[in-house]
Amino acid sequence: MSSLEHEQFTATQRSTVKRLPQRADYGQVIYQILDEGLVCHVGFVVDGQPFVIPTAYGRVGDKLYIHGSPASRMLRSLSNGIEVCVTVTLLDGLVLARSAFHHSMNYRSVVIFGTAMIVENPEKKLEALLAFTEHVIPGRWAEVRSPSRQELQGTLVLSLPLNEASAKVRTGDPNDDEADYDLPVWAGVVPLKLTAAAPIADSRLQPGISLPAYVQNYTRVCER
Amino acid sequence: MSSLEHEQFTATQRSTVKRLPQRADYGQVIYQILDEGLVCHVGFVVDGQPFVIPTAYGRVGDKLYIHGSPASRMLRSLSNGIEVCVTVTLLDGLVLARSAFHHSMNYRSVVIFGTAMIVENPEKKLEALLAFTEHVIPGRWAEVRSPSRQELQGTLVLSLPLNEASAKVRTGDPNDDEADYDLPVWAGVVPLKLTAAAPIADSRLQPGISLPAYVQNYTRVCER
Repeated sequence: MSSLEHEQFTATQRSTVKRLPQRADYGQVIYQILDEGLVCHVGFVVDGQPFVIPTAYGRVGDKLYIHGSPASRMLRSLSNGIEVCVTVTLLDGLVLARSAFHHSMNYRSVVIFGTAMIVENPEKKLEALLAFTEHVIPGRWAEVRSPSRQELQGTLVLSLPLNEASAKVRTGDPNDDEADYDLPVWAGVVPLKLTAAAPIADSRLQPGISLPAYVQNYTRVCER
Repeated sequence: MSSLEHEQFTATQRSTVKRLPQRADYGQVIYQILDEGLVCHVGFVVDGQPFVIPTAYGRVGDKLYIHGSPASRMLRSLSNGIEVCVTVTLLDGLVLARSAFHHSMNYRSVVIFGTAMIVENPEKKLEALLAFTEHVIPGRWAEVRSPSRQELQGTLVLSLPLNEASAKVRTGDPNDDEADYDLPVWAGVVPLKLTAAAPIADSRLQPGISLPAYVQNYTRVCER
């Protein structure tokens, strides 16, 4: 645990899991889910209208960095921070019950509330870009061309403090009604995971460049 | 194509893809993405605050059915429909460019705007539950115990018309700056897909019940 991380998150009115609270978790599992996920869904409001846009992210301690472009609709009118809800969902399995009603999914999700601020400082923007890249595929940053000053200027980065967050987790067998356990119906779980297939080289890859080990052995998506 | 489906969606102010419009698609790919996805992210607004909640869904023609429980915060105060933004995202690969700046992901996503209505009619609710179940694992509905009247009453279902929707799709190689193609850096794509592992029988499964073929051969997540 980094000194910038919470040991336990304080549940607030809006971050408290209301539905099936027994599945809620306000501890370290929040960081684990954020670190395993690759895409978040950013929710924000423009003129009362909700928008939900998928985007990449990175985490540094108790800060979540998100690409700013999804929020550009808002940024035209706002400069003092953007109220967002950011959700990361990992789908772990299909839960097949004996009744239609009790079918479910195994999942781990995190919901974060807060005010996202535009990152202006070039060093912080660089920290964010590093976090994006290393989050997706550790080892990559050291090998690629670093961002130019112009690229940094052209990148919109938002920073969201990880203060108000909750996780919700479902695992294990279906929960059937007692009477249904006698039905002659197969029940159980079909596990799902996001897996990497063999890397595909760029059609313009120069000859003689071999596949790096961190790409060849890319397994974090399913193994972490 | 069902007679209830659009051949082409009309792009509105809010459903028009503003960022990287060359990746936008307003045609049949919208249905294909919705049919392949398993989880949607529902965005709604309560007292100006955005909420983004993951949930299961099903599609019947030009209607998306979503589980109502995520919206229960809203339903306490609203009865004339709920303004939502529903997003489905399929992650297809990591795009490794020669510069940090041009790293990206291959994905297919759909964003739907509209007013979700509570489904009161028991027959329509049954249609929605069937759509949920068959969407997740085709063949399942015929085998399991059907919902009781009490279960139907206890299920909150929302119906969202598929009228305002857009897809956004990125495929293929990284797009590097021309000068960067000479760098001695491996570039390409790591394909990702959600895959099913071997089914795990419920710990209370009765002896003598064999695994159905539609579970054994479950491949739709990666193959459709």
